[in-house]
Amino acid sequence: MDETEALATFISDCAIDDLPEEVRERARTTIRDTLGVALYASTEPFGDQITEYISDTAPGEEATILGGETASASGAAFANGAFAHAQDYDDTFESVIIHPSASTLPATLAAAEKVNATGEEVLTGYAVGVETTFRIGHAVYPSHYTHGFHSTGTVGSFGATAGVASVLGLSDVEIRRAFGIVASCSSSLLANAGTMTKALHAGHAARTGLDAALLARNGITSNESILSGERGYGEVMTPGNSYDSSSITDDLGETWAIMDLGIKPYPCGRITHTAIEAMRELVETESLTPEDIECIHVTLEKAAEDLMTYDRPSTPEEGRASIEMGLVATLRDGDVRPEQFSYDFLQESETQELFDRIERDFEPNLFGDGFANYGAQLRVQTISGEEYQIERSHAPGSPSNPLSEERLRTKFYECASPSVPEPLVDDLYDVAGAIDEPGNVGRFLEIASGVPSTTS
Amino acid sequence: MDETEALATFISDCAIDDLPEEVRERARTTIRDTLGVALYASTEPFGDQITEYISDTAPGEEATILGGETASASGAAFANGAFAHAQDYDDTFESVIIHPSASTLPATLAAAEKVNATGEEVLTGYAVGVETTFRIGHAVYPSHYTHGFHSTGTVGSFGATAGVASVLGLSDVEIRRAFGIVASCSSSLLANAGTMTKALHAGHAARTGLDAALLARNGITSNESILSGERGYGEVMTPGNSYDSSSITDDLGETWAIMDLGIKPYPCGRITHTAIEAMRELVETESLTPEDIECIHVTLEKAAEDLMTYDRPSTPEEGRASIEMGLVATLRDGDVRPEQFSYDFLQESETQELFDRIERDFEPNLFGDGFANYGAQLRVQTISGEEYQIERSHAPGSPSNPLSEERLRTKFYECASPSVPEPLVDDLYDVAGAIDEPGNVGRFLEIASGVPSTTS
Repeated sequence: MDETEALATFISDCAIDDLPEEVRERARTTIRDTLGVALYASTEPFGDQITEYISDTAPGEEATILGGETASASGAAFANGAFAHAQDYDDTFESVIIHPSASTLPATLAAAEKVNATGEEVLTGYAVGVETTFRIGHAVYPSHYTHGFHSTGTVGSFGATAGVASVLGLSDVEIRRAFGIVASCSSSLLANAGTMTKALHAGHAARTGLDAALLARNGITSNESILSGERGYGEVMTPGNSYDSSSITDDLGETWAIMDLGIKPYPCGRITHTAIEAMRELVETESLTPEDIECIHVTLEKAAEDLMTYDRPSTPEEGRASIEMGLVATLRDGDVRPEQFSYDFLQESETQELFDRIERDFEPNLFGDGFANYGAQLRVQTISGEEYQIERSHAPGSPSNPLSEERLRTKFYECASPSVPEPLVDDLYDVAGAIDEPGNVGRFLEIASGVPSTTS
Repeated sequence: MDETEALATFISDCAIDDLPEEVRERARTTIRDTLGVALYASTEPFGDQITEYISDTAPGEEATILGGETASASGAAFANGAFAHAQDYDDTFESVIIHPSASTLPATLAAAEKVNATGEEVLTGYAVGVETTFRIGHAVYPSHYTHGFHSTGTVGSFGATAGVASVLGLSDVEIRRAFGIVASCSSSLLANAGTMTKALHAGHAARTGLDAALLARNGITSNESILSGERGYGEVMTPGNSYDSSSITDDLGETWAIMDLGIKPYPCGRITHTAIEAMRELVETESLTPEDIECIHVTLEKAAEDLMTYDRPSTPEEGRASIEMGLVATLRDGDVRPEQFSYDFLQESETQELFDRIERDFEPNLFGDGFANYGAQLRVQTISGEEYQIERSHAPGSPSNPLSEERLRTKFYECASPSVPEPLVDDLYDVAGAIDEPGNVGRFLEIASGVPSTTS
């Protein structure tokens, strides 16, 4: 059995009872987090641009675009996928630098709305989709990523396919064909990081995943072993050849990658998070203000250099790929929040002046191998002559440094509040966090779309 | 000015008066040929599967799916793109192994219907789209192709973007952004050759090209120099590094690639055409029948080995990637026609027995460099002991061996007849071949959709 077949069998066989309770619980948490993040983006100007585009190109009433419009299931998958990744605030597999939920959940949810699936089917589809993303992600890592592909979009499309295939109940051969189809539709280039198109990668993955499953269900044929062999996806997508099919098949159905999925406390690149956390500590313990700062020297792992493209960001999207932006936001407001990623905040003179006081540095093997637990070192010099040094590893929200329930709740409220009336946010938090219970998919979409029923 | 900017400027500047008359005339011919080919596919089972999928996922009335349904412009672009490439009967840039019209024309036409553009705008958009495809195709050839990407889909998406951008009148910066967006959405793997998904590549390219232009018009940002530099499209998409940006910019706007565009006389892989033509000659001059054949030995250029994947094809799609299928069809019926690519024809015992009497061989530098003018050698041994040898280079329909007007007309009639009543095929031929004249876009779609006005 080759790896495409093994994955297809795993997906078609997996039902809710095959998910260990800890996996279900983790999935409830990351689903809630993803829905919150996507909801926030729907209220931003970018959300309006995407909603307008989808209303124009994929009209319909099959599925909900967060924010209240509807579209064809494909259109809703695209929009919600783009929303889920727009703030760079969505969950992350740090070991392969992939945001799996941003493509998988919107696609799975749109398919579920289309066929009126249950919450348990959504949870199952989502779980196998996240698992698929992790496994293919590892099979092609690192050369796929270092060569210039944005794995969240490329590999994420397989996760979306898997989630949808599960919800639609596709057969083994249909799933293999859906993988063949999506392999020919998936793309995403890192050269678009720092622009709005980075968020489209998740939307494109969500839509192509859904569409691949629908096409396979319609009888469209493809290479049924697309991942393997000469000119297979694995070989083509790993220039430099790091493809390892055993990452796909080893312990499939026995271990669950979702337990390694990190949740972000800050709406920007994962690599900035330890530095931000360290800065917050300093600001709090030393009562630092922007006026105190002579210079901040930040050192990140060498591998992060390609991700932190902008030392003087001028757009919200550039800000999310800027270590300077995270530090300045922390200094100015004591925290990093979505609303800071705005043209206004970026253009303010205090922001610009603080940018000038930050120096960046990248060192190989800063805390060990690879991205080295996403660690960071800070050296802060004050105008009054003090110097503080602090270093932290293990990004907050990673499995080894989890966020508190309180912090997760605060994040969700912050994300939902711009669009949902306060009394309903509690309700939304509860239904989003128990999406597999009867009626909760519908109830979530109802509240999140601004049309709560009168019984609320 | 980098190559992305140069292309964007070329596209935004080009108007109908900038096209030399020979370019316009060639474009009328290839447009007519493409529309005919797509029309045929709309009547096939594959056409029904795609129309059903698009009606489900991209409903609307903006643009016409050939065969009579309507969809959003994006949906129509996808469907008609898949139709145009489904028979492998569409025009070809032999030097880069790309079918440019299959993505460019459906996208341009759908955009034109959406905004009610003129036929001259369609012709202009189509011409710049074909030019864009040729130039980017050359810039990434050969490593892009040999690595496993199906350029018709990958590079074709840029042609579709260009055609749509021209029709919509996008600004320079919008076109650069549309290229950035489409670079992150374009994909297509050769591993799907011989399956229905190969046709989807053109559909996917047509749709992503249209959508990229619409997104850019909506203000979505991207890397505005996507073709260039480290991690740019050129570098990422040419593992082994054959990217040459000068192919994009040299003599841009002065020479026109469409003059090198070949038109196919047979609905199967281009590399089979000289062998088929040679076989037809033998069948005719020697009055050969299937019963006469002891053995046929066919030799093609070495580079064709990866394209001719199936020596015993069992599906219509495999048949189109089989030199054996072309020879057997010629032997049995004296010609190679779309209706032969059916399960019935493949399963007939005479077909199967003839497959067993064909031997294939591939030789490097058979007639010179590269694909060597797509030449072929045949050696035929008859049961009665005769042996015939024949070799031909320059595929029929290539610019150096053009098809006669009569043969082009016959092809169009054969393609249109399954769906269009005979008295209207003449009219359809005329309006398709003069698409830039006032009213002809609408008139073509009217007849091709089966709803001709009563004045006809």
